[in-house]
Amino acid sequence: MRHHPVNLKDKLSLIQQHWSPRVVAEMNDYQFKLAKIEGAFVWHDHPDTDETFLVIEGEMTMQLRDEEIKLATGDLYVVPKGVEHRPVAEHECHILLIEPRGVVNTGDAGGELTADVDVWI
Amino acid sequence: MRHHPVNLKDKLSLIQQHWSPRVVAEMNDYQFKLAKIEGAFVWHDHPDTDETFLVIEGEMTMQLRDEEIKLATGDLYVVPKGVEHRPVAEHECHILLIEPRGVVNTGDAGGELTADVDVWI
Repeated sequence: MRHHPVNLKDKLSLIQQHWSPRVVAEMNDYQFKLAKIEGAFVWHDHPDTDETFLVIEGEMTMQLRDEEIKLATGDLYVVPKGVEHRPVAEHECHILLIEPRGVVNTGDAGGELTADVDVWI
Repeated sequence: MRHHPVNLKDKLSLIQQHWSPRVVAEMNDYQFKLAKIEGAFVWHDHPDTDETFLVIEGEMTMQLRDEEIKLATGDLYVVPKGVEHRPVAEHECHILLIEPRGVVNTGDAGGELTADVDVWI
């Protein structure tokens, strides 16, 4: 299963819950995760790794402590390792996350939006 | 520059040559590369790493020695490490490649389609 092709939009149609990344593929020790997001996430960082966001459909803002980065369909942005960030989406936005296996969505911040890792769809 | 957002279609519009991946972003020691492909590439493999293809626009076939995998816009496929493959596109197809920094497009096969690595756009 892990080396079959996946259609991102087909997989996204299976996701109901916001802020719950679902793994769709692996490359070496990295994972591709789809998520639907809406509203404001928690401020957090990932001290050991960069984290890539690719907007599949919609618009979102990546808030950094000193900057706001607007992202729309087809935009790719790599959050640098250790940089505090907070994704925000006014309306539902569909994203592809790429990061090492085992990265927790809320980083070191924890809280109720913390999702299980390594859940495949 | 390496941590600014990039729009994939804007970057693709800057690419003229087929089979010449251009780096647009980095995540840890991995790179995101855009390419336009048309025709048949060479059979090759990457003995040390998986390699990810995401079709941004168009259609392509990933030929494996025992299988042909049809890919269209929005399809993601991870070629496993060490597996011989040959991308083929009847018409021009736009793809995003994700793989470790330094991977050569023709793997160990070499030949005239071998592109320079680490060329940013």
